[in-house]
Amino acid sequence: MLKPLILITNDDGYNAKGIKALVDAVKNISDVFLVAPDRPRSGMGHAITVNEPIRCFELDCFDNIKAYSCTGTPVDCIKMGFYLLGEKSPDLILSGINHGSNVSTNVLYSGTMSAAVEGALDGIPSIGFSLTTHLPDADFSTAIKYVKIITKKVLDNSLKKGVCLNVNIPNVKTELVKGLKVCRQGRAFWDDTFDKRTDPLGNEYYWLTGSFSSKEQADNTDINYLKNNYVTIVPTQFDMTCYTSLDELKKWSF
Amino acid sequence: MLKPLILITNDDGYNAKGIKALVDAVKNISDVFLVAPDRPRSGMGHAITVNEPIRCFELDCFDNIKAYSCTGTPVDCIKMGFYLLGEKSPDLILSGINHGSNVSTNVLYSGTMSAAVEGALDGIPSIGFSLTTHLPDADFSTAIKYVKIITKKVLDNSLKKGVCLNVNIPNVKTELVKGLKVCRQGRAFWDDTFDKRTDPLGNEYYWLTGSFSSKEQADNTDINYLKNNYVTIVPTQFDMTCYTSLDELKKWSF
Repeated sequence: MLKPLILITNDDGYNAKGIKALVDAVKNISDVFLVAPDRPRSGMGHAITVNEPIRCFELDCFDNIKAYSCTGTPVDCIKMGFYLLGEKSPDLILSGINHGSNVSTNVLYSGTMSAAVEGALDGIPSIGFSLTTHLPDADFSTAIKYVKIITKKVLDNSLKKGVCLNVNIPNVKTELVKGLKVCRQGRAFWDDTFDKRTDPLGNEYYWLTGSFSSKEQADNTDINYLKNNYVTIVPTQFDMTCYTSLDELKKWSF
Repeated sequence: MLKPLILITNDDGYNAKGIKALVDAVKNISDVFLVAPDRPRSGMGHAITVNEPIRCFELDCFDNIKAYSCTGTPVDCIKMGFYLLGEKSPDLILSGINHGSNVSTNVLYSGTMSAAVEGALDGIPSIGFSLTTHLPDADFSTAIKYVKIITKKVLDNSLKKGVCLNVNIPNVKTELVKGLKVCRQGRAFWDDTFDKRTDPLGNEYYWLTGSFSSKEQADNTDINYLKNNYVTIVPTQFDMTCYTSLDELKKWSF
């Protein structure tokens, strides 16, 4: 039987443990083609590189897998993946496994999820996976288990065209995972601030910092389920129209 | 009467003609506070700067207006605007006027619109304005007319919390504009390719290129109305959940 072709990327860079875990989870059931950033590109959202050129380099650090590093963003990596694949089209796009969760409005900031959304824009079933720890040497064994389960389900059932999945996995031992929940994106926001410092030359600079918090009481959100040790699955799409505002705005007489 | 406080940014950089046009359109009816990228940052989407520090410099090229350039992305500029304003909170956030349209799925790639979406995340009424020409010396007189009309409407009526407007203005003389249309985001996609070149040292590099096209027949989209010389207004929000997929996915037995 012909194996499915899976295009893999991430936003932590090709050298991250998470993308190696993702490759390990699916390499036996698929042909993997990998294009990943050459360095950490967290927080790149849906950025593309238009003001400078992109370079790609073939990698030999993934056994028996065609793999490239790319100087571009995660979304660039998806576009470059299509270009390098030429005539072939991936059956599935996987992004991650991200070091750190991407629940709620983080879908906008996350390079991992933006790569999956880019896959959805291209009409390819796509999944972004994230684990709730930023540790570089995180234990991905629980994540790998759920990557396998969810990837197989998507290959078997496919997804509606234009939809990708935002999957977040709690950083706990497998036996502590309570199950999987299909749910909506929670409403939570960054309370940003900047850490103001002075460089050795006496000039000011800033580090973006802040805390992420939800004021929402509802329990049917990815934020809440993940906190309670469920794997969360949010079907995600790219139409940002606020349909409930259309009628109201049409009443405005311009 | 106390003038409203408007925070202004863009993605073409503080030196672009479009942001000067935006300031000119609203400076008589408001107090303007400006934080804009120090260079063109088109296509930055919702990227934030987390792997390097940000610097800001006060500008004196905007008469009687507190203005800063920022090494960060358009979304960083909004966050930095809030930080620099301190106790004060803007009544309105305006982004643009972008050199080039941002209809349809370009809302994801556009730094201009991502800055407006960031404003919506912060609960502030926000508008992204774009003119359908990339020319650096574009004529913004038509755009300025509609910026004034729409800004006044939003200040008078406000917007639902969490909603911003994606406004696109045709690059035609004012008398050729057919009117304004409140409508949804069209379904159109980039057909990407890469222009492969060789640098003077013999190494390959790529420029991202492509064409944007819609296969949608519907006429109630921003793409269609803009093409027919309407100013388009798409109410835009940040919940990317595909609600119509929730029930289907819940049926999957994981």
